[in-house]
Amino acid sequence: MVALDLDRQTLFDWLLRLGDNALILGHRTSEWCGHGPALEEDIALANTALDLIGHCQMWYTLAAEVEGKGRTADNLAYLRDAIQFKNVKLVELPNGDIGQTMMREFLFNAFHFELLTALTGSTDPKVSEIAAKAVKEVAYQLDRASDLVVRLGDGTEESHRRMQAALDYLWPYVGEMFLADATDDALAEAGIAPRLTDIQTKWEAIVSDTLDEATLTRPDRRPDVHTGGKQGRHTEHLGYILAEMQFLQRAYPGAEW
Amino acid sequence: MVALDLDRQTLFDWLLRLGDNALILGHRTSEWCGHGPALEEDIALANTALDLIGHCQMWYTLAAEVEGKGRTADNLAYLRDAIQFKNVKLVELPNGDIGQTMMREFLFNAFHFELLTALTGSTDPKVSEIAAKAVKEVAYQLDRASDLVVRLGDGTEESHRRMQAALDYLWPYVGEMFLADATDDALAEAGIAPRLTDIQTKWEAIVSDTLDEATLTRPDRRPDVHTGGKQGRHTEHLGYILAEMQFLQRAYPGAEW
Repeated sequence: MVALDLDRQTLFDWLLRLGDNALILGHRTSEWCGHGPALEEDIALANTALDLIGHCQMWYTLAAEVEGKGRTADNLAYLRDAIQFKNVKLVELPNGDIGQTMMREFLFNAFHFELLTALTGSTDPKVSEIAAKAVKEVAYQLDRASDLVVRLGDGTEESHRRMQAALDYLWPYVGEMFLADATDDALAEAGIAPRLTDIQTKWEAIVSDTLDEATLTRPDRRPDVHTGGKQGRHTEHLGYILAEMQFLQRAYPGAEW
Repeated sequence: MVALDLDRQTLFDWLLRLGDNALILGHRTSEWCGHGPALEEDIALANTALDLIGHCQMWYTLAAEVEGKGRTADNLAYLRDAIQFKNVKLVELPNGDIGQTMMREFLFNAFHFELLTALTGSTDPKVSEIAAKAVKEVAYQLDRASDLVVRLGDGTEESHRRMQAALDYLWPYVGEMFLADATDDALAEAGIAPRLTDIQTKWEAIVSDTLDEATLTRPDRRPDVHTGGKQGRHTEHLGYILAEMQFLQRAYPGAEW
């Protein structure tokens, strides 16, 4: 397939989505640092956060290059307001308890893993290179998250109840990941990105198997109740994340280590 | 008593303490807006927050005038970092439940009311004028808070337990309000402000009576474990408050309605 001449803005927007998902989930995950329920979990979550922030840096660097306006990865992370962020709402939701955190990790990672795997075959060599680096870490994150979802879902009565509650809470947000708009379609047509329907099929298989093993019930509700994050329409939570995350650069513009 | 020639910086610092206490407690109180346990409480807390933010504006305006460097009340609220804030740590602590919130209101208001009452007799007419306006609102806040401390302390087993826990948690922070440093001493010598030991005596009487009536036990711990806020050394909580409160002015410098 010959890559169509994709306009820069569309490619830039799509790269931001990848970077923003990684940054915002990375920030949320970093909130566990020093608060994990066990030392091993604390360290694992801190490492996951660092991995994700590393991915966002790669995507942002490429996005800034594509944009060609002299912005840097740091500019993109610290000097945009909520409406310019293109992450799915799922990743900006509060962590809740460790069960909710791991359920979100699992639901997002199953998508993230399949997306990155597909992107390793992207027609854009820079995209496939970043995907090849990131997918190794995300494969590990998915392993860990699904393992914990099973152990906690099929655990005590209390842990089962909490995991089911987490799944019910997060479910109406998962559909956004697979909702293709003009940007997703253009990227798929150019061969840079996969069709999101293909990713969804693979995601369904992973989620189905894991929830079964975890003795959890797939919610009846529609999974696409809360959407719009990819287009810059966010929950109130993102504003608080940015206020905290961007404080240093906002208060001391241009400050460097 | 003839007012000594107080240097501007000392008077400015002292006015900031008054303004910062009002702003930070006002911000904390405003966090209840839309989350109060009952409609009446929600509205009362929102009004309390507005009163406090009104006080801070008066103190900051006077402070900026004393400083004489062209700063405004808004500059002082939105463009200082944590180390430049001079509020006592008590007011920056998280709200906790409504019991903890009301206990903090009570402990601070008993001080605030006695301080403002004394300031109505300040040798500085601008100070006494602001104090005379603010003390009416704070008198009402103190009434409400002490009433609720008694009702919840001498209430159900659960409400009693929570109020005692709130008191125990907050107690190590109350001592800072009465800990005079060179700034407080200079203001007292100039007749602008009262001696904090005098305020403490009156505070003790109010607190003693109210805790008795509330069937709560005065903690054994030292009340001056956590100090330094007045000198700009704060808990981590203040940084999060400022990140949120200052976001708009930091992200959009000079923005006006």
